[in-house]
Parts: sequence; C-alpha cells; structure tokens
Amino acid sequence: MKKVLAVNSGSSSFKFKLFSLPDEKVVARGMADRVGLAESTFTIVLANGESHQKQIAIPDQEAAVNLLINALKKYHAVEKLHEIVGVGHRVVNGGEYFKDSAVINKDNLQKIWDLAGFAPLHNPAEAKGIEAFMHVLPDVPQVAVFDTSFHQTLDPVHYLYSIPYDYYKKYVARKYGAHGTSVHYVTLEAAKMMQRDVKDLKLIICHLGSGSSITAIKNGKSYDTSMGFSPLSGVTMGTRSGDIDPSLVQHLMHETGASIDEMIDILNKKSGLIGLSGISSDMRDLKYNDDPRAVLARKIFINRIVRYIGSYLAEMGGADGIVLTAGVGEGDVEVRKQIMDAFKYMGVKPDYEANKSNGQKFITKPDSKIQVMIIPTNEELMIARDVVRLTKCC
Amino acid sequence: MKKVLAVNSGSSSFKFKLFSLPDEKVVARGMADRVGLAESTFTIVLANGESHQKQIAIPDQEAAVNLLINALKKYHAVEKLHEIVGVGHRVVNGGEYFKDSAVINKDNLQKIWDLAGFAPLHNPAEAKGIEAFMHVLPDVPQVAVFDTSFHQTLDPVHYLYSIPYDYYKKYVARKYGAHGTSVHYVTLEAAKMMQRDVKDLKLIICHLGSGSSITAIKNGKSYDTSMGFSPLSGVTMGTRSGDIDPSLVQHLMHETGASIDEMIDILNKKSGLIGLSGISSDMRDLKYNDDPRAVLARKIFINRIVRYIGSYLAEMGGADGIVLTAGVGEGDVEVRKQIMDAFKYMGVKPDYEANKSNGQKFITKPDSKIQVMIIPTNEELMIARDVVRLTKCC
Repeated sequence: MKKVLAVNSGSSSFKFKLFSLPDEKVVARGMADRVGLAESTFTIVLANGESHQKQIAIPDQEAAVNLLINALKKYHAVEKLHEIVGVGHRVVNGGEYFKDSAVINKDNLQKIWDLAGFAPLHNPAEAKGIEAFMHVLPDVPQVAVFDTSFHQTLDPVHYLYSIPYDYYKKYVARKYGAHGTSVHYVTLEAAKMMQRDVKDLKLIICHLGSGSSITAIKNGKSYDTSMGFSPLSGVTMGTRSGDIDPSLVQHLMHETGASIDEMIDILNKKSGLIGLSGISSDMRDLKYNDDPRAVLARKIFINRIVRYIGSYLAEMGGADGIVLTAGVGEGDVEVRKQIMDAFKYMGVKPDYEANKSNGQKFITKPDSKIQVMIIPTNEELMIARDVVRLTKCC
Repeated sequence: MKKVLAVNSGSSSFKFKLFSLPDEKVVARGMADRVGLAESTFTIVLANGESHQKQIAIPDQEAAVNLLINALKKYHAVEKLHEIVGVGHRVVNGGEYFKDSAVINKDNLQKIWDLAGFAPLHNPAEAKGIEAFMHVLPDVPQVAVFDTSFHQTLDPVHYLYSIPYDYYKKYVARKYGAHGTSVHYVTLEAAKMMQRDVKDLKLIICHLGSGSSITAIKNGKSYDTSMGFSPLSGVTMGTRSGDIDPSLVQHLMHETGASIDEMIDILNKKSGLIGLSGISSDMRDLKYNDDPRAVLARKIFINRIVRYIGSYLAEMGGADGIVLTAGVGEGDVEVRKQIMDAFKYMGVKPDYEANKSNGQKFITKPDSKIQVMIIPTNEELMIARDVVRLTKCC
C-alpha cells in the first residue's frame, strides 16, 4: 500500500503522521521533541495504539528524520521505504506568492526561506525539515502546504488595511490569515455533514485552540478571516492579545520603556488568557476556577469570538453553518453553549443534550436556522491529500 | 431670556454656539479660526442668518473669548452679559476619572490638564479655553462635557484589552471611546422618534464623519464602542487607519525606519480614506470618482462599518434601531443605502425613496425589523443641556 507522510517541523519539535492511501488510515504518528536541546525524545505511536518512546540525542531536523525512518521500518509501519510516495510539510507563511500548496523544487524552497521575515519562528524550521527529507529520501516528492494559501481568495476589500497604499505595494503589508489547512479541512467536512455542495454554503469556522481564528467561508472559499498580517490579531488567544488599538502599543512603549520588538513579544507571549487571568493560557485551567480574573478572561475570550462571528454574518449576509474546531472548539462544552446562545436572535436552536459530549456532530436542532457543528480538525490529512492532489502519487 | 454658551476649543480653532433657554434656540454661532496663527479670522452668524466675519489678530484663547463677548453684545445676541448663565466645554478625554460631565473647579481643571497625555492635541487647548472664560466671565459657572464619559458604562468585558492585567492597573490601558456627547444626543432623539422608552431599546449608533465610530446602546447606556484607548481604532476614517494588526506596526517600523511616534502619526494623519485612495480623506470627493482606488476606499469604509454593526448585533442579541449621524451619515445617500442593504438578512426593509434626501427621519419601511434613522447630531445642544442639568442655571 502507498503511504504519505505529513510533517510539521517546529523550531524544536517535529511531528509526523503516516497515512496509507487511498484509505486515508493513520499507520503511525509521533514526534521528535526538544530537537537541538538537551533531553530530547522520540515517540512513535502505531495504528494498534502501541507506543514507543526513547530519550536520545536529536541534534537537528535531519537526525529526527533518520530516527523517524528507522522507527517506521523497525515497527513495520512500512516494509520498504519506497512505499512512502510523498511527504507533505506544513509551512506557516506563503505570503502572496503561494496561492496554493506547491511541489518542492529549488526555487520554491528558496522562496520559503525568503518569507522567513513573516514567520521567523516557523518558516526556517520548516525549510530545514524539507531539506532534511531531501537528504534522507532524495527521490520522494515533497509538497509544502501553507497556512496562508487558503486565505489567498480574500478580496482586497478584506485583505487591505486602511493605511497608505504604498505600504501594501512596497512592504506587502496586508492580511494573510492562518490556520488555512485546518479551516479548509473542516469546511469540506461541514459540507459533507450538511449534504450540501460546498459552493452553495456560507459558513463560519471557529478554530479555537491555543491560537484561535474565525474565518468566513463563502462558496467554499475563504472570504474573510480574523488573523491578519500575523497570527497576533483577531480574537483573544492563549497568550496572544488579538486586536488592540495601535495607539496603545505606543502608550505602553512610552510608559514601560520597552522597544517595539519587546512590546510585540509581550503581546504574543504574555497577553491573551494568561495576561488577563494571571493564572493560565489554557481555557481548561480557567474553566473550574472561580477567581474573578479567570472568569473575566473566559468571558472576554467568548465575547471576542461572538463579535467576529457577528461581523462575518453581516459581511456575508447570514450563514448556513457555524463550525467549532480545534482544542477548545472540540472540547469546551460551556464555550460552545455560550456561542450558540449568543446567536439565538439569528434563529440558532441549540441542542444542549448533543452539546454535552464531544465528537463530530450537529449540536443544534434540525430546524435551527444556522446549523452549529463540532468537527475535529485534521490538518495532517489535508496535507496528505494535497500531496496526492499535486504529485498524483496515488 | 437666559442663555448658555457651548464651546469647542481646538488647538487653533474656537467654535461656539449660544442657546436661549429653555426653548433651546440658537441665538448665535460662529468661530475664531487660526487662533495663534497668521491671518486669523472671527465669524459670528446670528439667528436671522446674518453673518459677520473679520480678519483680526487672535493671539490666544482669551483674545478669542473677548472677541466673542464683544460680538455678542454688538450684534445684540445678548443685551447684558449676565444673561449668559453658563458655559459648557467639549473636552475630548476624561479618562476613568470623569464618569459624567463636571462643573469646573480648581481640581477638575487640573485633572483635565493631567489627562493631556491621552489627548495631547485637545485637552490642553480645551483647558486653555476654560481658563480664558474664567478671566473674562469669572462669575459664570462652567461645565466640562467629556467625549469619553458616556462610554464609562462599559463593562470590563468590553473595555479591557487582552493584555497583561497590570497594564490596566498601572497605565490605565483600556478602551475609552469617543463621540460620546454626539452618541448620547442621537440616542435620546432616536427613542423619541421610535416613541419608546430609551431604557427598553437596543440601538447601534453610527457616527460617520471625518472621525467615525460605531456604538452599541443597551438600555440607554453605552454598551460597547469601536474607538478604543484612542480615537485611532475602530472603523476606517478620513485619515485614521482604524483597527490594524499590531505586528504590522512593528513590520512597518522595521521596513521604513520610522519611530513608534512617527508611525502612529502616519496611522492618524495619512491613513484611512486618504491613505487608501491617494485622492482625498473626504467621502464626498471619492463619491463620483471612478478611480479604482477611490472606489476601493469607499468599499472598505462601508465594509468596516458593516462589520462593526454586525459584531454589535451579536453582542446585544439583535437591535431595534440603527442611527446614521454626522457628516457622512447625514449626507451620503449611497453609504446609507449600502449599510441598509447589508442587513436585509436581519429583516431590514429599506425605504429607498425616503433615503434619497437628507434630514431627520426613518429610512426603513414601517414593518422593518430594525428601524434605520438619519438623525443630525447636535453635540452643542447636548453640552448646553448638561450645563443646565449640572448648574441648575435655568
């Protein structure tokens, strides 16, 4: 059976999922953790649930790839290496250049390096991951799947900021969005669940995890999205502020003496739920905590999501469905309930009983004017599918 | 007859309106222009439409006040000075301190100076205007009416940013909003037009001028508003950017070498409609211009308004009315039409015939689920009313 690897190379982690095709089953998954750091570990989990972990030095991405290949053979996830017919890589930023996923060649790889300014923590790690596979599996085609590509369908009305137009031309200052691979996957799943052609649907996808974004989908395409030039803006996140008045950045720089880089770092890493609550960046930790600031942080998180859904309902003139996905969307009953309750004025009829448990399903009544769904996301499968689509490997 | 002056002291202009009370008629209005600059002028327009203008040196606010008093007497707008029983001043920022308009005393005046950091172009000019009246009319009570006070009813869920909580405590980093006096005035007018108790209404007020803001009103109180820590954020404006990703400020600073103060200055003065179009900051100039960037700028302006209205519909769970006010709201037929059309999905039924002309009226059909109204704003009258309310002068 032919197999495709989906890879997500972070700055110090390296996650993978191996799919068999065309049945799209997960043959193995796992990760190399703390790549380039002390006490690094390698973990592989097989289809039967068997898990193997070892502590081993993993100095770089290439070491991680070698460990992965050896483990796949050792545990019979593949019998022969040529079963692996393609490797797909998550890449955070494709700028305006990559309007779709792309088969890797010399030029495309260089372009990913060139775009590092937009995602300094991510693009270089991902480029290194691609290079590692070029060395270890030189004959296997690789595909880069960009978090931004799915949002390249946005109209200039939605992707331009109201700043001097030259800044867009000279410095590519525009909205790129993120989470595109996840959003694309759940969009297609939603259409299946609703038994409708995705081209006839208006959807609002709430990808709610440690990073969160809201995307408006019209005719199967991304129509608008809450993340912007960077993944900092939009709704309140685990450690990111989401939208704030740019004047406030100036005020805080003057008050604290911080530089712009220091201030943006604080807005990325010490803001959001952790900044508001002072307790945790994780909605699960704040859930059963009655500390007033924990309660406040959860309220603000929900409020900003409701605001964005409302703004996209207005932009599209209504919606057929709202999808909740990623950690919080898939796992937080109370957040889901409050989002549904906020849209009763639009004819949303929550099915509270269905909402009590997780898993892919409708959580509104059949006669709800907008259907609300939980759909567990699967970016890796979307990546594997893009490998198949672009390389015709199987 | 008793009279009250409403004054708006800018950095180089000084506008006034004199009302007779209790009939709230305008006895005289006008302005001193280019105060402290060359070629300054003083203009007064009387109730009968008679207008008098002269070019005269106006070195400071006190000179402007003396010119005003002399003109009022000369043109018989007042016969005796003691007819003027109160003076109300627009003040841009009252911080968290002024939760309502305030009768001026030594402490309050100092506080207005202290808050200058929040409105460096405005608060000092306004404080100087108050001091000028203290010298010229020492026995007449003065009242400061703050653009921010009306928004002090916001809940922390709406006024806090998702940044480290300490920043709120130490640096009063929060949403203040603006246009409160205008928004308060049209809110009360809307309730009158709808023949409803303002306490039972949910309204969305679109103050659309060279500066623009959207405010959600619940039970007669400001519930949320699009301007934030400063009047820079929210929707696209004449020269202001409205909301942008804070990371973009960082990116542009690095690309252009601008300092944070220079960058915020560009976002305040060279962005918005003028930045996008390259043609004008005035919607009237862009209206009949088919230059693609003029068309784009207008589309973006309307889109951002529609987004905010949508987000406030969601926050409040619907609305009874939408009010359009200020220059663009009161005068741009096409903008009003497009805003109404965007909310047909909410049951808005535009009355296109009514919308073709300006003036205070409903522009939706009687059976529209949300009533849309044009209401010319009148901040000066609201200021005069606050003088009466707080000084009981008449």
